[in-house]
Amino acid sequence: MQIAIVLYDRFTALDAVGPYQVFSSLPGAEVVFAAEQAGRVSDDERSLHLSADAALADVPHPDIVVVPGGPGQNDQMDDGPLHDWLRAADQGTAWTTSVCTGSLILAAAGLLAGRRATSHWLALGELGQHGAIPVSERVVFDGKYVTAAGVSAGIDMGLTLAGRIAGDQTAQAIQLGIEYDPQPPYDAGSPDRAPADLVRTMRARSRFILTGRPT
Amino acid sequence: MQIAIVLYDRFTALDAVGPYQVFSSLPGAEVVFAAEQAGRVSDDERSLHLSADAALADVPHPDIVVVPGGPGQNDQMDDGPLHDWLRAADQGTAWTTSVCTGSLILAAAGLLAGRRATSHWLALGELGQHGAIPVSERVVFDGKYVTAAGVSAGIDMGLTLAGRIAGDQTAQAIQLGIEYDPQPPYDAGSPDRAPADLVRTMRARSRFILTGRPT
Repeated sequence: MQIAIVLYDRFTALDAVGPYQVFSSLPGAEVVFAAEQAGRVSDDERSLHLSADAALADVPHPDIVVVPGGPGQNDQMDDGPLHDWLRAADQGTAWTTSVCTGSLILAAAGLLAGRRATSHWLALGELGQHGAIPVSERVVFDGKYVTAAGVSAGIDMGLTLAGRIAGDQTAQAIQLGIEYDPQPPYDAGSPDRAPADLVRTMRARSRFILTGRPT
Repeated sequence: MQIAIVLYDRFTALDAVGPYQVFSSLPGAEVVFAAEQAGRVSDDERSLHLSADAALADVPHPDIVVVPGGPGQNDQMDDGPLHDWLRAADQGTAWTTSVCTGSLILAAAGLLAGRRATSHWLALGELGQHGAIPVSERVVFDGKYVTAAGVSAGIDMGLTLAGRIAGDQTAQAIQLGIEYDPQPPYDAGSPDRAPADLVRTMRARSRFILTGRPT
C-alpha cells in the first residue's frame, strides 16, 4: 500500500507529519514524500526542510494521496503539473485525502465538486467557492475523499482512516503507540469555544494567517 | 529567542514536529534543527528525512532545547558529543525539554537527577533507572526542565510552555491557528484506558516498540 504525501514550498509541517506518523505504522505501508521535483522542500516558517524523495511523476499510482495545507497552498491553485498529477493519481486511489487548506487544492483540481469537505476554519468559505460543500467538522468522509480541518486535525484523520483500512484494533495500537491522549492546556482550538475577541482578530487577519503575506 | 531541536538517526518525526509547530509561531522565535553533524537526518521509519541546518557545535547557546525521542534514542545513551553539548547548552537555557524517550537522553546526560520527569508510558521504568523520578503525567515541569509523555504529547508540552513564555493569549492564538481541538476516534491513547489486552501485548513487545529491533 503506497501512500504519497505531497509537498510544496511553504507547506505546514504538522499537516504532513501528523498523518505520516499514523500511516507509516500501518502494516504494509510504504510512505513516500513527493513534490513536483524531488529534493528539499521548505515549510511555511522556512526553518524546517523535508526531503521529497520522489518527483510526482515517479509516483503515478499511489493507493492513498495526502495533500497538506499551508500558506504555500495559494501558489498551487492554478491548473498545472500538480493538478494534472492529482487528477490522474485520483483515478486509481483507494483514498484521496487532505489536511487543512490542502482541500482547497483538491477542490481547485476539480476533485471535490459537489462533495462534502472541510478545511481550516478560516478557509471554509473559500472551499465553497471552489465547488465543494463546506462542512465544519473535524474529519469529513465523502466516498473515498477524506478531508481534515486545520493542521493538527490530520492526526485524527489519520487514525480514523487507519481504522477503516486496517481495523479498530490496529488503529488503537497506533494511537497507544503515539500516546495520543491529548490534554491541551486551553480549550481554544475551535472558533466555537476560543475567546471571541481572539476569533474576531484572527478572522480580520485571516488573509495573512492563510497566506503568510500582509494584506 | 533561539530554540534548538536536536535530531539524531531514527528519531520519531512527530516528537520533533509537534513542538516545532507550536514554538515556531512564538513571537521572536528562531527555531533551528541541529544534529551532531549538519545534514539530512532520517526518522525511525526511514521514510522521512529532515534537514539539520546546524551542527550542535554551531548552536552553543540556545534559549530552549528540545530533545525528541524515538528508537534511535538507544544509540544516544552513552557519554559523548551529544551529552557534552546538552550539559554545556543546559547551563544557559531558559528551558530544557524533551518529548517521549528524549527524556532518557536528558537523564543519561545527568540533567534529570532527582527531578520529576516523564517519558513514553513504556519507558517510565527505564527513566527511573537513570536517576529521574518518573511521573505518569502528560507534561511534567520541574524547574526549567519540561518533559512530555509519548510522541503526540509534544504538542501539549509546546502549548503549555508557550503559555509560560508568551502568556495565555498568545498560546491560545497558536492553538486556534493550528486548530488543536483534538477528537481522537478512539479512547485508546493511554494505557489506563486502552483495551487491556492491547496494553499487555505492547508491554510484552516493548523492547521492540522502543528500539525498533527484535528482542
